[in-house]
Amino acid sequence: MKNDNHLEAMRHSLAHIMASAVLKLWPHAKFGVGPTIDNGFYYDIDLGETTISQEDFVNIEKEMKVIIKSDQPFILSEKSIDAAITWAKEAKQPYKEELLNDLKRAGTTKVKNIDSDELGIINSIESKLDKVTFYQNGDFIDLCRGPHLKSTGEVGAFKLTKIAGAYWRGKDSNPQMQRLYGVAFETEGELKDYLDNLEDAKNFDHRKLGQELDLFLISPLVGSGLPLFTPRGTVLRDELNKYSQELRKKIGYKNVWTPHIAKQKLYEMSGHWEKFGSEWLSVKSQESHDNLVLKPMNCPHHQQIYASKQRSYRDLPIKYMETTTDYRDEKAGELLGLSRVRSITQDDSHIFCTSEQIDRCLSDLVEVVREFYKTLDMDLEVRLSFRDETDKYLGEANLWTKAEKMIKDVVESKKLKYYIAKGDAAFYGPKIDFIAKDLQGRELQLATPQLDFVQPQRFGLKYTDENGQEQTPVMIHFALMGSIERFLAAYIEHTKGKFPVWLAPEQVRLITVNQEKQTLKFANEILNKAIGFDLRIEVDNSNQSVGKKIRESELYKVPYTVVIGEKEIKSGKIQPRIREDLTKSKKETNIGIEEFIKIVTDESKSKSLSSSL
Amino acid sequence: MKNDNHLEAMRHSLAHIMASAVLKLWPHAKFGVGPTIDNGFYYDIDLGETTISQEDFVNIEKEMKVIIKSDQPFILSEKSIDAAITWAKEAKQPYKEELLNDLKRAGTTKVKNIDSDELGIINSIESKLDKVTFYQNGDFIDLCRGPHLKSTGEVGAFKLTKIAGAYWRGKDSNPQMQRLYGVAFETEGELKDYLDNLEDAKNFDHRKLGQELDLFLISPLVGSGLPLFTPRGTVLRDELNKYSQELRKKIGYKNVWTPHIAKQKLYEMSGHWEKFGSEWLSVKSQESHDNLVLKPMNCPHHQQIYASKQRSYRDLPIKYMETTTDYRDEKAGELLGLSRVRSITQDDSHIFCTSEQIDRCLSDLVEVVREFYKTLDMDLEVRLSFRDETDKYLGEANLWTKAEKMIKDVVESKKLKYYIAKGDAAFYGPKIDFIAKDLQGRELQLATPQLDFVQPQRFGLKYTDENGQEQTPVMIHFALMGSIERFLAAYIEHTKGKFPVWLAPEQVRLITVNQEKQTLKFANEILNKAIGFDLRIEVDNSNQSVGKKIRESELYKVPYTVVIGEKEIKSGKIQPRIREDLTKSKKETNIGIEEFIKIVTDESKSKSLSSSL
Repeated sequence: MKNDNHLEAMRHSLAHIMASAVLKLWPHAKFGVGPTIDNGFYYDIDLGETTISQEDFVNIEKEMKVIIKSDQPFILSEKSIDAAITWAKEAKQPYKEELLNDLKRAGTTKVKNIDSDELGIINSIESKLDKVTFYQNGDFIDLCRGPHLKSTGEVGAFKLTKIAGAYWRGKDSNPQMQRLYGVAFETEGELKDYLDNLEDAKNFDHRKLGQELDLFLISPLVGSGLPLFTPRGTVLRDELNKYSQELRKKIGYKNVWTPHIAKQKLYEMSGHWEKFGSEWLSVKSQESHDNLVLKPMNCPHHQQIYASKQRSYRDLPIKYMETTTDYRDEKAGELLGLSRVRSITQDDSHIFCTSEQIDRCLSDLVEVVREFYKTLDMDLEVRLSFRDETDKYLGEANLWTKAEKMIKDVVESKKLKYYIAKGDAAFYGPKIDFIAKDLQGRELQLATPQLDFVQPQRFGLKYTDENGQEQTPVMIHFALMGSIERFLAAYIEHTKGKFPVWLAPEQVRLITVNQEKQTLKFANEILNKAIGFDLRIEVDNSNQSVGKKIRESELYKVPYTVVIGEKEIKSGKIQPRIREDLTKSKKETNIGIEEFIKIVTDESKSKSLSSSL
Repeated sequence: MKNDNHLEAMRHSLAHIMASAVLKLWPHAKFGVGPTIDNGFYYDIDLGETTISQEDFVNIEKEMKVIIKSDQPFILSEKSIDAAITWAKEAKQPYKEELLNDLKRAGTTKVKNIDSDELGIINSIESKLDKVTFYQNGDFIDLCRGPHLKSTGEVGAFKLTKIAGAYWRGKDSNPQMQRLYGVAFETEGELKDYLDNLEDAKNFDHRKLGQELDLFLISPLVGSGLPLFTPRGTVLRDELNKYSQELRKKIGYKNVWTPHIAKQKLYEMSGHWEKFGSEWLSVKSQESHDNLVLKPMNCPHHQQIYASKQRSYRDLPIKYMETTTDYRDEKAGELLGLSRVRSITQDDSHIFCTSEQIDRCLSDLVEVVREFYKTLDMDLEVRLSFRDETDKYLGEANLWTKAEKMIKDVVESKKLKYYIAKGDAAFYGPKIDFIAKDLQGRELQLATPQLDFVQPQRFGLKYTDENGQEQTPVMIHFALMGSIERFLAAYIEHTKGKFPVWLAPEQVRLITVNQEKQTLKFANEILNKAIGFDLRIEVDNSNQSVGKKIRESELYKVPYTVVIGEKEIKSGKIQPRIREDLTKSKKETNIGIEEFIKIVTDESKSKSLSSSL
């Protein structure tokens, strides 16, 4: 959120303009709250028996445009709380009256039992309780702190988007109101982009694609937030993980393996329990009296492996990696496809090193992030998450200062554009967050190297230095994808399900034009020639029409579809149909089987983003 | 246990002979129980203040040999229970007296509160309670059902092995007795083999090797039964798993992924809960009201994936595989290294097929087992685990009969030696168990294909057949290693830690004779030339003596140790030292670096058991 005060004021003003328009069309309208939200605004409205539908949007928007055209100024005024209550009564606005009465009773502007979503107006009221502020445009006057634009004529591009039911103050014993949503941007161009994205977001929602492409499922018998991956979805997980580990192997990481449960005591020692203990899933054993939990992170486990042997400065840096599933007790209402799950698979890793080695290790990690996301054609924002002035952090202040400087230096030496977010550090140290955005503009934190001066001390980790003295190593936490599930949510939407050849669950589909022996034989010949090349080839030998079979292959977004008919059998050559995003050429190439297999194999190995056919 | 009645009688007779000898040496000896056990026998003895030590074994054995040489017949006699009690009183055998009184009181030969270990004599008493039987050899008479050999002269080879404390009837409020152990075999050769194995079992216990070779650890902070694997141990896990999956991929298996927790309801539906529910770890969520458990097996999860789509006969067989960790609430006292753990990683898989496809699918699986264990140079016994007459099985009787016949046919067509174990089937169907033995002769069940006609029905799984009719598929459960942890326990002991090149955590160690620049440079040259060959090479550049460095490499059982000194740098050739079990040749070969790298790479790829150098 950078420099968007104007946009915020505009969206807020549009909520008032929309309310004015509604009041013009339905003079008996009673208003609840009308805050701004991401990309727009809404207003809760009670129209009694009348129901607003999508068809009414045209009229409301027309009315709004009239108000905008007449360029009404937004006029600020003040009333005492009692005068305000009188106003609400006279204006027949019972919801406003209730809010004002609550404010008066509470003696503060903070009123409990209101959803954060509905805090818009409440927060907008001046906090000195003797007076509350109003804004007026035209005939419409509303209890509100602002800020607003100077006049209605200043608003940019907007569009009403949807209408939904909403209980007054979020309680289902209260009256149900109608929540009318709109979006707004500075320019028509931005609005159009947003609406296009919104359309995309609907069509290419990873949950929708996950089902269409047969990638994963949620089973009611297994439980919510616990996705299961089909063979197709597992190809994505496995190939991405293989690549993630391959890049780290090159810079010295070695795989370790740890179990998914541990004693709670482990996390008490690490410091995690005190901070996050309530968000975990506990495990009950009948055979052990220990308090056990499902591991919510892996660092303390890896520290136990480090601690299992004497270490010397000559052994450092020691680099462990492990792709393993952590579990967190996410709220049912917040679970969402793969974006927010209870089973979180991390491509996790930890470095134990001397302070002199931090710079080199961090620098290697930034390069790994760069290479990985370049291969995947994803642009990431770089956020340096530092500490703020609160006391939620552990460890010595001078170490923090040093660590934050190191991180900044590395990122600058790599010439990366970045911004600093104070207060976003982990409790044990500062970190670099690489952030992607999904189609709806939501931020998803992916790769993240994190410095840690705290945990090695708490676990008493040691190494012997050149002089035979015991020293405490520094830790660098690092995950490249972060959570594989959340990464996949972002990546499926980013690619709209059109995965490059090396990741495509099915790389080649062979379609037979009939079910005759020689047709099948030719298909098998291709399969046999591909043995040992580790390609993912399927055969569709069903007795449907070729057209239908091709369409089905397209639905699965298979990179290469090869039709096998008389011509192919006779010539021994094939004409692969290439998925359109992979090629600019429209022509179909006649090619030998071995050559085709070689090309697909090479594209897989080089992780190419387009077809070389 | 085939045809070993004679061995059993011999071991039992030796318990009496040992007791006779002890009574000769310590005439005040009071006897508890003296059963046979695996490989031998023991007797619980109360000698008052006298403590038997290892040094006494020679004397006891000498006395036993006198008894054996004199070839005393074992004479059977009967007494009424009251007469027996009188005998025990007169013989000053208070423990026997107590047992006899308990028998009289209980009115049956079954007496409670006696450890299964200590049932030897109790079970040996005739079950008609009016009379109990005695056996006498020489002066020694003992309450006993037998059977015994005809005379003491018939016993084979034996040896007293250890002495341990044991509370009378296993209760720590009872007097402590001395338990004297012996082992016995038909021939001296067998005894020697057993004792050699016992020595090996001590030296090559996988827990000992696990620490010496830095493979895994148990952390008190993580918990018992929850091993953590170091980078070296993880190489074993990963390489074995890669191979296990590779073999199954060839016969059509595809990877899936499922979470480690699920609703209890899933297992209620599968039928597992009713059978094993008490052995599981439950999971407590604050956010969900569902009863959750850590998954103890994976079949119900895989069934959910199958059930997520419409399936046609053309799609079958569908083959899913997943290497994933299950959790079971094993008793703390039964946990043992990697042999018995709470975190059980299975290289699991499931086939969904038509009944016509069972034969082919099973046949493929038997071949996979054969290839895998041949590569690993392990001999396995084949047990067909069928149902018995109890009612612990689910599913229709005729399906069971059919399935058992199918399994037998496949195993016979593969010309495998097998035996049938009635009562060892899974509750859902019969299975083939491939069984290894560890150095102590304990049986470890590894690979196991299992037929299942029950679960697909319970979950309502369907496919559409050629005629458009809905049918229920058959399932074949299969794990190749079984539990990777248990497999590793067996395999580490089988190889005594001398892993073949393809599995060795460290394949090559480069040892520098000094720390000069050119020496290091040459080591780096070798490393650089190996890039891309995926070899595991470490450098020991420490300032210890070359002799010490070589010994350390030997301790880690590294297949190839390469010393880098002046001669190597000058000639550009190396003389790898080969781990002795990998080669018959004693000569050290002079070889170029590229050639050496190629040889090690080829040995890795071909999974060779010996060095071709």
